[in-house]
Amino acid sequence: MHVDHVGVATEDAESLADLYTELLDAPVAHEEVFDGLRVVFLDLGGDGYVELLEPVDDDTTIGRYLENEGGGIHHVAFATDDIEAALETAREAGVGLIDEEPRDGAWGHDVAFLHPKDTGGALIEFVEH
Amino acid sequence: MHVDHVGVATEDAESLADLYTELLDAPVAHEEVFDGLRVVFLDLGGDGYVELLEPVDDDTTIGRYLENEGGGIHHVAFATDDIEAALETAREAGVGLIDEEPRDGAWGHDVAFLHPKDTGGALIEFVEH
Repeated sequence: MHVDHVGVATEDAESLADLYTELLDAPVAHEEVFDGLRVVFLDLGGDGYVELLEPVDDDTTIGRYLENEGGGIHHVAFATDDIEAALETAREAGVGLIDEEPRDGAWGHDVAFLHPKDTGGALIEFVEH
Repeated sequence: MHVDHVGVATEDAESLADLYTELLDAPVAHEEVFDGLRVVFLDLGGDGYVELLEPVDDDTTIGRYLENEGGGIHHVAFATDDIEAALETAREAGVGLIDEEPRDGAWGHDVAFLHPKDTGGALIEFVEH
């Protein structure tokens, strides 16, 4: 596995995209509105991205996160070429799954999240392109 | 740049290393006590790591983070082959620096952190191996 992306929650994806593009030499690779969120992927080169997540609808998990925690690092996604096997490994390790089965994520990828209560508080996503 | 590592704060690096090694197929690559912290790097393959950070001394920033926020993703580190230039870019972008100059970090690397108040709440580290 490798780090596919780090997800950052923000109230203003456009401004943060401009800043991160400059700081990290990471141009915008993809942008869409998905599941009530403006989602912007910044390309770090190689296989890695920063994903900016801005709520555009009311009552999103990211919106609630921003209210409770403020902006910042929301999750880390690890790329796998077999997400079903990765989820089975998590199950066998006793880690609860937010998504029991892979679901459609941003950018057309298959994604699934693990319960942070079982991973030391870190919200971990598996993603298969 | 690419994601060098994601730093995860924990009260128990050994247990979390065991779990993450299984979940992410990421064996321990390096372990040391540095700056009041037990630091464990898990090798994701390629150039990426997960860094587990457990306080062993009283009064560490990670210890205070754990008290205030609980365990979880603490920072993201981006690898650069010119950390001085990366810091200059951050200065020019108006981002405050926690470390005005690179300092010795874990595993013998040069590191510097940016002020999260200027990066949308995300604690960003630059690291040069």
